[in-house]
Amino acid sequence: MLHSTPHRRIAIASDHAGFDMKAALAITLRDAGHDVVDLGPHDTARVDYPDYGYELATAVADDRADVGIAICGSGIGISIAVNRNPAMRCALVSDALSARLARQHNDANVIALGARLIGIDMARDCVDMFLATPFEGGRHGDRVAKLSTPPHAKDPA
Amino acid sequence: MLHSTPHRRIAIASDHAGFDMKAALAITLRDAGHDVVDLGPHDTARVDYPDYGYELATAVADDRADVGIAICGSGIGISIAVNRNPAMRCALVSDALSARLARQHNDANVIALGARLIGIDMARDCVDMFLATPFEGGRHGDRVAKLSTPPHAKDPA
Repeated sequence: MLHSTPHRRIAIASDHAGFDMKAALAITLRDAGHDVVDLGPHDTARVDYPDYGYELATAVADDRADVGIAICGSGIGISIAVNRNPAMRCALVSDALSARLARQHNDANVIALGARLIGIDMARDCVDMFLATPFEGGRHGDRVAKLSTPPHAKDPA
Repeated sequence: MLHSTPHRRIAIASDHAGFDMKAALAITLRDAGHDVVDLGPHDTARVDYPDYGYELATAVADDRADVGIAICGSGIGISIAVNRNPAMRCALVSDALSARLARQHNDANVIALGARLIGIDMARDCVDMFLATPFEGGRHGDRVAKLSTPPHAKDPA
């Protein structure tokens, strides 16, 4: 990883399409000294991305991890699933600029990646920027706070 | 628009960063014969993207529009807000392939665009593909159904 970042507990989950990218990122992150909580799947059998997105959201919301990485074919489906949880701010990203803005402006605690849309080095660059970039706060803080109190979810986890 | 698509009622919302792109897309869509429900903002004064994302989600969930387009600087913040509503499947996209997959695999009913990350012709191409592409159903149907019943939102709108 380019940036030296503080030790983190990183939850990672995918579907079958994201399995290989998940495995590769887990190695990179462990080599960089992070704790990786691999929530599965643990082989390439077909699974449903919502199940793994919900599990990842619960793991981060329950403080079993500091941040999360969610991977499916396009990143779209699993990012929707993670964001059902009002405690999650999951940013679907495909480049480091988006990953940086997700942290600076949205205080993202999860990033979603599309394993069939971007390559492993682009994914590593996104993760690196995601882990290295602080939240800017200020006016962004009020907006982020509103993401925790949606009118549609009266019973946040 | 490249594709000739059936008439739709399209809700569109943004924040101040997405105002110009929203205005330009509204013209394109009306010229193509669609009904456009412009949920604001109606000038470039600073606003909070969650307010407009929640309003867009409610408009589509209440069937005041068939589909929605959500725009902020990166697309990240407003996509998170829209997806707080379990009836929404909002895909953050920056290219037509993602927009196509969002329809084929995720039955997306909203797309989010980053007005500071992609240009207006790329945005038009995303919208065009989003409106033109049918849902594939099949195994994707079971996964999409799970997005409507998250464990985190017990009181869906």
